[in-house]
Amino acid sequence: MAEPLHIGLLLFPGFQALDVFGPIDCLNVLSRTHPLTLSILSHTLDPISTKSPLHPTSISQTINPTHTFSSPPPDIDVLLIPGGLGTRLLDSDPITASIAFIREIYPALRYLITVCTGSGLAARAGVLDGRRATTNKRAFRDVAAWGGERVEWVAKARWVIDGNVWTSSGVSAGIDVTLAWIAHVYGEEVAQGVADGIEYRRVKDAGDDPFAEVYGLE
Amino acid sequence: MAEPLHIGLLLFPGFQALDVFGPIDCLNVLSRTHPLTLSILSHTLDPISTKSPLHPTSISQTINPTHTFSSPPPDIDVLLIPGGLGTRLLDSDPITASIAFIREIYPALRYLITVCTGSGLAARAGVLDGRRATTNKRAFRDVAAWGGERVEWVAKARWVIDGNVWTSSGVSAGIDVTLAWIAHVYGEEVAQGVADGIEYRRVKDAGDDPFAEVYGLE
Repeated sequence: MAEPLHIGLLLFPGFQALDVFGPIDCLNVLSRTHPLTLSILSHTLDPISTKSPLHPTSISQTINPTHTFSSPPPDIDVLLIPGGLGTRLLDSDPITASIAFIREIYPALRYLITVCTGSGLAARAGVLDGRRATTNKRAFRDVAAWGGERVEWVAKARWVIDGNVWTSSGVSAGIDVTLAWIAHVYGEEVAQGVADGIEYRRVKDAGDDPFAEVYGLE
Repeated sequence: MAEPLHIGLLLFPGFQALDVFGPIDCLNVLSRTHPLTLSILSHTLDPISTKSPLHPTSISQTINPTHTFSSPPPDIDVLLIPGGLGTRLLDSDPITASIAFIREIYPALRYLITVCTGSGLAARAGVLDGRRATTNKRAFRDVAAWGGERVEWVAKARWVIDGNVWTSSGVSAGIDVTLAWIAHVYGEEVAQGVADGIEYRRVKDAGDDPFAEVYGLE
């Protein structure tokens, strides 16, 4: 696939910073040699904070969207959905809007990539129905209860590919699923070049996941 | 050290996203159980972009500072300096201002932590004089030439500790140096809890660095 891809990044208050910037920094590096477009989508154009209402005293950062869910660019090829404590507020306006946007855009996507509890939002949107998927291991049982009964949740997996849906385990697993996706789309040499550029030791085996055991899922 | 620490994050245009958000997300998670304060400092309060003038067509994100270098909070304990292609513009206003700020604040710090080519800015500020330090491995020779002749640059190191200065290798090494620093300050159990929370396989040996060989430094 030589043509430039348009990446959409979905954001909501209380996103986990590394869920976003692990994958996105791989794509930043990739885009130095392979042109990409990035749009950052949220329910508002105001800055979006990593701070979750569940941890109001934690430190936080804000990043800036480029589009709202109601005015997305027309040609997004790949949607990246992070997780984070913000996903827990399932009835909040930003999360309700995120789930509606995922449901609306999914049929037009070439790829959907989720990190951490982001797969819980995809499950709520119904786009994981009948698919195999994984999620954050500490939150595994919680996510499976968020309307994900029609999903075949895989406990021991760094990431899971089912059709055009790539779901990964918690936080740093987003780096590995993104490098695996880059290898799939652009070739192994390009993916290894990105990994070397960020001095990251890839997990190359999607089943290599010690954290299922750490969190008592085996 | 039980009391809350005040973390300062230094930002400049063209910072590497994961240099910032690897360490910062470890601190975000830490701050859920161990109170911290974070200030984000730059030459302006305008949003700061990851985009480097060296790669004007690459995709980018912006994050928002909380303070300028000219009006910093008075009580920063720990300064975190990321790297990125923006560091290459040594004569630009933001980098000149960053170096001056590092020089000014260093004597009041408890700890200085650098990621990637961020150690090159610390070297230019003179605060690495007579110290052992490391940096990004692909940029190793360049950084050593940025006025770092009085620094003992260590090629094969994931990170190096010399006094209160913790310098790490490229990009993802920032996660490992931060977890090592958390272990030092808060204890090993706290550090491992953060690592498990982000499902990250720590490099625990500061000398375990395959990227020195990848980039022909051995």
